[in-house]
Amino acid sequence: MPDKETSRVEAFSDGVFAIAITLLILEIKVPNLESFKSSNLLYKELINLWPSYFAFVVSFAAILIMWINHHGFFNYLKKIDSRFLFANGFLLLLITFIPFPTAILAKYIESEAVNAAAAFYCGTMVLISMAFNLLWFTSAYKRRLIKPIISTKLIEKIKKAYVLGFVIYLLAFIISIFYAYVGLIICISLWTLWSFLDYSTTKERKNNITSCQK
Amino acid sequence: MPDKETSRVEAFSDGVFAIAITLLILEIKVPNLESFKSSNLLYKELINLWPSYFAFVVSFAAILIMWINHHGFFNYLKKIDSRFLFANGFLLLLITFIPFPTAILAKYIESEAVNAAAAFYCGTMVLISMAFNLLWFTSAYKRRLIKPIISTKLIEKIKKAYVLGFVIYLLAFIISIFYAYVGLIICISLWTLWSFLDYSTTKERKNNITSCQK
Amino acid sequence: MPDKETSRVEAFSDGVFAIAITLLILEIKVPNLESFKSSNLLYKELINLWPSYFAFVVSFAAILIMWINHHGFFNYLKKIDSRFLFANGFLLLLITFIPFPTAILAKYIESEAVNAAAAFYCGTMVLISMAFNLLWFTSAYKRRLIKPIISTKLIEKIKKAYVLGFVIYLLAFIISIFYAYVGLIICISLWTLWSFLDYSTTKERKNNITSCQK
Amino acid sequence: MPDKETSRVEAFSDGVFAIAITLLILEIKVPNLESFKSSNLLYKELINLWPSYFAFVVSFAAILIMWINHHGFFNYLKKIDSRFLFANGFLLLLITFIPFPTAILAKYIESEAVNAAAAFYCGTMVLISMAFNLLWFTSAYKRRLIKPIISTKLIEKIKKAYVLGFVIYLLAFIISIFYAYVGLIICISLWTLWSFLDYSTTKERKNNITSCQK
Repeated sequence: MPDKETSRVEAFSDGVFAIAITLLILEIKVPNLESFKSSNLLYKELINLWPSYFAFVVSFAAILIMWINHHGFFNYLKKIDSRFLFANGFLLLLITFIPFPTAILAKYIESEAVNAAAAFYCGTMVLISMAFNLLWFTSAYKRRLIKPIISTKLIEKIKKAYVLGFVIYLLAFIISIFYAYVGLIICISLWTLWSFLDYSTTKERKNNITSCQK
Repeated sequence: MPDKETSRVEAFSDGVFAIAITLLILEIKVPNLESFKSSNLLYKELINLWPSYFAFVVSFAAILIMWINHHGFFNYLKKIDSRFLFANGFLLLLITFIPFPTAILAKYIESEAVNAAAAFYCGTMVLISMAFNLLWFTSAYKRRLIKPIISTKLIEKIKKAYVLGFVIYLLAFIISIFYAYVGLIICISLWTLWSFLDYSTTKERKNNITSCQK
Repeated sequence: MPDKETSRVEAFSDGVFAIAITLLILEIKVPNLESFKSSNLLYKELINLWPSYFAFVVSFAAILIMWINHHGFFNYLKKIDSRFLFANGFLLLLITFIPFPTAILAKYIESEAVNAAAAFYCGTMVLISMAFNLLWFTSAYKRRLIKPIISTKLIEKIKKAYVLGFVIYLLAFIISIFYAYVGLIICISLWTLWSFLDYSTTKERKNNITSCQK
Repeated sequence: MPDKETSRVEAFSDGVFAIAITLLILEIKVPNLESFKSSNLLYKELINLWPSYFAFVVSFAAILIMWINHHGFFNYLKKIDSRFLFANGFLLLLITFIPFPTAILAKYIESEAVNAAAAFYCGTMVLISMAFNLLWFTSAYKRRLIKPIISTKLIEKIKKAYVLGFVIYLLAFIISIFYAYVGLIICISLWTLWSFLDYSTTKERKNNITSCQK
């Protein structure tokens, strides 16, 4: 059972995640049919918005999976301290930033400037990955804030996953500068990886927690 | 009593519903009186915004009723797992999308492009109905995540309602392509139907839960 | 102690209140200094925004006091039902609407169209007052949802306050059509009245609740 | 353990903090590459947005640290009353206002109008500092709402910090009128100060609370 302190920070973070994920929609602009307004024209315009839909879905999935991880994360903590608060704050800063690179990507993915847009997007992901590593380090270093029931094996495993994630994001970022789409595809496939990581850890966590409740 | 896991996902989803429903207002744009600003002119402009008010109210009601259902939904769950998290995430993705088709509808309901706008709006509802079915299937298939106290009769009833809903939304969508208003009216009347479905299930649920608390 | 049902609706409503109150800021537009950008010019522009600040503060106070009342309101409820959910939904619909008349007021309070803007604003308040009366009637009629410990005297008192409030708002609305500022002043002074009503009721409620906890 | 009243106001305030901090991103506008869209051009545009990033980070940090303090604040309260609700409401009003001076700062920090922008930003901070002092006074005066376990020494210490903070913000404001950057630097360094204040108080508080739980 986490103390009030912890659950309140958790609730605040959840709020920020929930708002950031919902604000994404504001970046999809309603098309303006200047001249004669026909259904065919509007259909065409709505289809031409595919980059916005794509960016919206990708970022939504990103934030959702980050939230799931963040959420799994908190189940490991026995308490938090100010240092953790600031590491968490840095992560939230980057989460709230996501709608902006998303809008950039949506606007320029079809243009000549796609590489800059993709690099900016992947670069944001590199920073977020850094923030997750920082958060994990702050909590797991010498098991400062980790519940006793969490096995060191599990801690190591997650640490490895975070470090590996960072390296891959960094590669994706560098690649995206030259091959925008390749970089983006790596970013997206990474989220899929996260989701599976989380799945496994959730299972393990569940076991741990039930075992501790006995 | 749901476990922490469940209630936190519930809280996060509630947050997304609450934000999506409130963002709807941002789609109503303040009218711009270029020339001479008279009260009569402003009254006229405010009345001419009726499509925005209409779309706002309709989508607000839609999200509210979806929330009520989602909320009733969670009372049936004894626990959740990652597969559920992703099904729920898919639903939330579509909920946060609603303000966009709403804005499209408000902008083009009076124009020649009304059919495209209505079809886009009803199409979104078809997807949402799909997501609800998926969510229900994920939880109710072989009663994976359903509380033992929930009668199989009730589960079947809700399943039927969801499947029926999907079929009707699909019809509404197809119709809206040719008869915009007819399609929209079917969509709206469906929400009324949902609200009554929820009413009945709530009553039954209440009984079930009290009976279990004895 | 309210049941889970009640506290979740309470939490959802709080979310909507919190978001609506925060969205108000988005209606204050950053001034655009076309030509030569001097500090004096920006100071002047920032001061010229007084209608926006005024509308922002007034609506913020309005939503905050409505939230305090809504919040006090829920302390009277022993349970809720679907009918209550829809009455509450209607209220939330109008709460989320507030940023729009606020923006209208801010934009036209200095123009010839001030009467239309003020009437639109006060009209919204009339509807909100109606929604509060409806919510109260839904819960207090034959004490359907009211905690036994709440004295009928208190219920009557609140009912009177709500009905009186509605009448005054209606007057303010009618007056504002002809004398914009008079109507607005009545609206604002009413919130002051609410805040005191809430103060007193809070005290009484506290007593009731403590007395019941004995 | 705080009573329901207190925790609900806490939750509402947290919501407003979380939304205000997330809305900051909406002030960063997507650059528009009119002519030929090249990656180099977009890179340049994204770099030219540094004032927006700067303002975003600074205000994010400001709101986060204010939230941490507000949050520490509530741990001292044994109960709240209406007077507290209004003092808290005044604080929230100013918190939700922050995105606006932030946008002003971002837009004019590079222009001739930087002094007005900086003064407007620091001025907002002066008001917020006032609101914190008011909130503290409302609660701590004659220990009206303070938990018995909180040592008077600690109360005095915090009071001093708040008063000192107000004086420094006021200085920063006056200076910013003439030396924009100096004023801003003082504001920012103050937040660093707050964060440390909070750190120490958190530790003390922890001790107090554990000592009381014995």
